[in-house]
Amino acid sequence: MSAPVRITDPADPRLSDYTALTDVALRRTREVAEGLFMAEGEKVIRRALAAGYPPRSVLLTDKWLDAMGDLVRQPAVPVYVVDPGVAEQVTGYHVHRGALAAMRRLPLPSAAGVLAGARRLAVLEGVNDHTNIGALFRSAAALGIDAVLLSPDCADPLYRRAVKVSMGAVFTVPYARVDRWPHCLEDLREAGFRLLALTPDSDAQSIAQEAERNAGPTALLLGAEGEGLSRRALAAADARVRIPMARGVDSLNVAAAAAVAFYALTPREP
Amino acid sequence: MSAPVRITDPADPRLSDYTALTDVALRRTREVAEGLFMAEGEKVIRRALAAGYPPRSVLLTDKWLDAMGDLVRQPAVPVYVVDPGVAEQVTGYHVHRGALAAMRRLPLPSAAGVLAGARRLAVLEGVNDHTNIGALFRSAAALGIDAVLLSPDCADPLYRRAVKVSMGAVFTVPYARVDRWPHCLEDLREAGFRLLALTPDSDAQSIAQEAERNAGPTALLLGAEGEGLSRRALAAADARVRIPMARGVDSLNVAAAAAVAFYALTPREP
Repeated sequence: MSAPVRITDPADPRLSDYTALTDVALRRTREVAEGLFMAEGEKVIRRALAAGYPPRSVLLTDKWLDAMGDLVRQPAVPVYVVDPGVAEQVTGYHVHRGALAAMRRLPLPSAAGVLAGARRLAVLEGVNDHTNIGALFRSAAALGIDAVLLSPDCADPLYRRAVKVSMGAVFTVPYARVDRWPHCLEDLREAGFRLLALTPDSDAQSIAQEAERNAGPTALLLGAEGEGLSRRALAAADARVRIPMARGVDSLNVAAAAAVAFYALTPREP
Repeated sequence: MSAPVRITDPADPRLSDYTALTDVALRRTREVAEGLFMAEGEKVIRRALAAGYPPRSVLLTDKWLDAMGDLVRQPAVPVYVVDPGVAEQVTGYHVHRGALAAMRRLPLPSAAGVLAGARRLAVLEGVNDHTNIGALFRSAAALGIDAVLLSPDCADPLYRRAVKVSMGAVFTVPYARVDRWPHCLEDLREAGFRLLALTPDSDAQSIAQEAERNAGPTALLLGAEGEGLSRRALAAADARVRIPMARGVDSLNVAAAAAVAFYALTPREP
């Protein structure tokens, strides 16, 4: 690690990657434009580094300096040490995990790139909530989804909250953004995937029945909390599947529904 | 509805139920001590009323006055109308759902009371995160869990965030707090429930196998994010069950794990 640099002035330009982290609108624009994202907390920072994302700098409070001294091995990466009060003034919140890393984004792979070799896909349409995106990736990683495709209006998986909720799964589950939505779904079908649209509609078939009948490559389409999948996406699917619900309950949260669906479509252990 | 009362002074004592809603420590203590909880947003407020919780008062911004005019039919329940700025000064945040209701708590049923007639229970140990508690209740309602039991250190299902994340499911899924933890688990066994402890341990049996073998009354024990179930709770169970995970991933979020487990233990449709 490079020698830690103590900074006491919240306006120090070396801290500019970390300013106003609670301003969602600002950060969403800025981070994508600058090819930057934030990893927060020791575990998530280590996972980002292990996944090959290059660090721009690290911001630590004193308490974390010893525990994370081994974190950044490249001498060219600055490590800034600040008081908790300075951290709060810069970021806009109390950084209770005590460590932030400004990381460089890598070029996103193409959809064709993430499909190669994949057998189980999640395809998200309009999932624009960072917590839900993060939770979906965490479940995808745990339940053996090979890759995720995102419609153009999905939230950024590398936004700080999504990264945190995913516990770093956004670094390990390959994903791509697709354009020409929903026409690109035809490309999936041509690539051999059966397209399943998850819906709460009671006339869809149960997902367990679908899982029993089909063991081939599968792409599960998931819509946003609230609206669900668009009519065009539903129409483009090969089958509509549902999770059986107790009477009178309208729906599961999209992240819970996704976890159940990923599980239901997992080939059973013998 | 009683005639709406316009209030312009954030310090007006009639608004005291709504003060400092973002101060979690204060509200946790105060709401339980005063037998009060907060419902937020039209849908959740309607669900609280439908479930029989008596309102103390309603706080609306002008925009919501028409849409929610029919909400409170008891003339004795005051409806306060405030500007969004006043709402924010009182509560401490921007009330973008535009409507809050201060509701009266009802006496919690006993554990024996919620068990009567139940066949599928969720038993939560140390789940102290309001978002997770809320998400668990929402999934429990959707996936046919009959009742929830809470260890003494679980978070309050009627805390504002839990209520909101549950979409009101905390009003419809019966729950009770148990004492003598974990000895009370013996009472469940005596009442005929098979106790299943959910764990990520790879030597536990898969939950799908358990579901195939046993169709009787079941109590699923779930621990907190991070630590999981205590050794005592694990020891008290009849069997340990796991959700098969992809290689190298340590765990699902507790709410996602619960949703998957509730689904996996649901009797399949013919």
